[in-house]
Amino acid sequence: MSQVQSFDWGGWSEQELRRIDLAMQEWLKPFEPQALFESMRHALLGGGKRLRPLLCLAAREAMREFDGHTPRLDLEQAALRAACALEMVHAYSLVHDDMPCMDNDVLRRGLPTVHVKFGESMALLCGDALQTLAFEVITPESEEVGEVIQARLCRILSRAAGLKGMCGGQAIDLSSVGLQLSQTQLELMHAKKTGALLRASVLMGAACSSLDNGQWQHCAQFLTTFAEKLGLAFQVIDDVLDVVSDAKTLGKTPGKDALNDKPNFVALMGLEGAKGYALGLYDEALDQLSQSGLKHTQALSALAQLVVHRKS
Amino acid sequence: MSQVQSFDWGGWSEQELRRIDLAMQEWLKPFEPQALFESMRHALLGGGKRLRPLLCLAAREAMREFDGHTPRLDLEQAALRAACALEMVHAYSLVHDDMPCMDNDVLRRGLPTVHVKFGESMALLCGDALQTLAFEVITPESEEVGEVIQARLCRILSRAAGLKGMCGGQAIDLSSVGLQLSQTQLELMHAKKTGALLRASVLMGAACSSLDNGQWQHCAQFLTTFAEKLGLAFQVIDDVLDVVSDAKTLGKTPGKDALNDKPNFVALMGLEGAKGYALGLYDEALDQLSQSGLKHTQALSALAQLVVHRKS
Repeated sequence: MSQVQSFDWGGWSEQELRRIDLAMQEWLKPFEPQALFESMRHALLGGGKRLRPLLCLAAREAMREFDGHTPRLDLEQAALRAACALEMVHAYSLVHDDMPCMDNDVLRRGLPTVHVKFGESMALLCGDALQTLAFEVITPESEEVGEVIQARLCRILSRAAGLKGMCGGQAIDLSSVGLQLSQTQLELMHAKKTGALLRASVLMGAACSSLDNGQWQHCAQFLTTFAEKLGLAFQVIDDVLDVVSDAKTLGKTPGKDALNDKPNFVALMGLEGAKGYALGLYDEALDQLSQSGLKHTQALSALAQLVVHRKS
Repeated sequence: MSQVQSFDWGGWSEQELRRIDLAMQEWLKPFEPQALFESMRHALLGGGKRLRPLLCLAAREAMREFDGHTPRLDLEQAALRAACALEMVHAYSLVHDDMPCMDNDVLRRGLPTVHVKFGESMALLCGDALQTLAFEVITPESEEVGEVIQARLCRILSRAAGLKGMCGGQAIDLSSVGLQLSQTQLELMHAKKTGALLRASVLMGAACSSLDNGQWQHCAQFLTTFAEKLGLAFQVIDDVLDVVSDAKTLGKTPGKDALNDKPNFVALMGLEGAKGYALGLYDEALDQLSQSGLKHTQALSALAQLVVHRKS
């Protein structure tokens, strides 16, 4: 923990959040038809913790020691693009999840959901276009990001967001309503549904490095396990908050899992059991960072701490 | 036309359609949950003209003269991946367009639409996952496709499918119901809604070449205009068929535009006017191929002919 205390988390995260917001505004300039633009802006810029972009930039931070003496602005820029792409994929998934045929939720981040504000058909298109924009942002026409890095980023993102990742997890979730899942089954579902994109966040940040593929694999191994532990802790805490929090703090409707008879960690191991499980996962995640031997992992540690102690 | 007659279109297209179908089956192997797999297979492998994949492979064919003496299996493979990715994006757009909140269509290619067969929530996920799979297929982990080509393909596809292309066109279409559009406005809408992906089909095929970016731009210029003329002709014929065809031939519900008060070319210029306009665009498209000086454009010409003379 001394590592975290000596690191200026407040200053770092404030600066990175500002960079992320400016970049997203840059990549989502006003266009016609206005309804599509406004709905995408509402989904993308209407708040949110920016956990995935921050994880991505924190992982890039951890790879900084391999940069050499000249500042690698190209890698910084690639990581910023990756960070925004991750938020776009996350935002699209929320827009579609909130739709009447899915969770039918009217409140998100304390604001009306996209389909409530812009109609169902625009919400559908808004999500579709946000997913595409993610792939556009990581493949710039200009040469500011090398093509090897562009291809790496597309590879990681598409595999995390698709049928083997987020969409696959969503589909398992849909098929599990009313079923009694074992802890193993529940963890597999979450490893895909939310875990895959959190893992991709760390890996995409780490991919923005000058290491060749072989050296990169070595670092990526510890960061992958770190991200998997963290992703699971994130979901366990999500289930805890769904039980103990209120709509105002949470920014969305709580108690939906119980209402919809969805399997979750609190139902499986009780409230205190779930809290303890999340803390154990947190320790295991930090342990991976120590084992990696990487010097600049303070931002990653701080984010892990935030994930398990968050109130919303 | 002598060029088209001396080219074995039947043999070429039969072989390429088989390659496309085998490749799509390879990239969409059975997985859990079964409902997501089955819905994606229904959307992707349940028929269709495969116009976009064929355009892509025909454009790759046109670039063959720059290959040199050794067969470029890597470029052939890249084009096949691009072809399948284009069909995946097209299929996803149809699944989402057919949903109740959009066109609410129950019939597609003579079969029940995905949401009718698998439910709305699965149709939403099916479309989402098909879009992601497109980007996965063009960014293989293995080195069979070079990273420069991978990045090129992602760039073209994401720009064609997103807010500046297909999704943007859809949103303009949504906002135009009941409005009187001018021919210019109608053409702009279609240039995005269907034109952008047809243009990308030709460009992605052409991108699978050994030319450097400068030389490639020169060829791409003629092929781009060819694709734009063809894309517009395709849409004009679509509007003609919507009036003159029946559900059995068309494989989908005809007469929807008039019913939904959607602007279209037949309403704007009459049935005969629209037919003549499409034939003129066809001639202009072929003219671009002649001007390009490329030697192997026979498959592209044959496809253009099919587009304006199709019955469904």
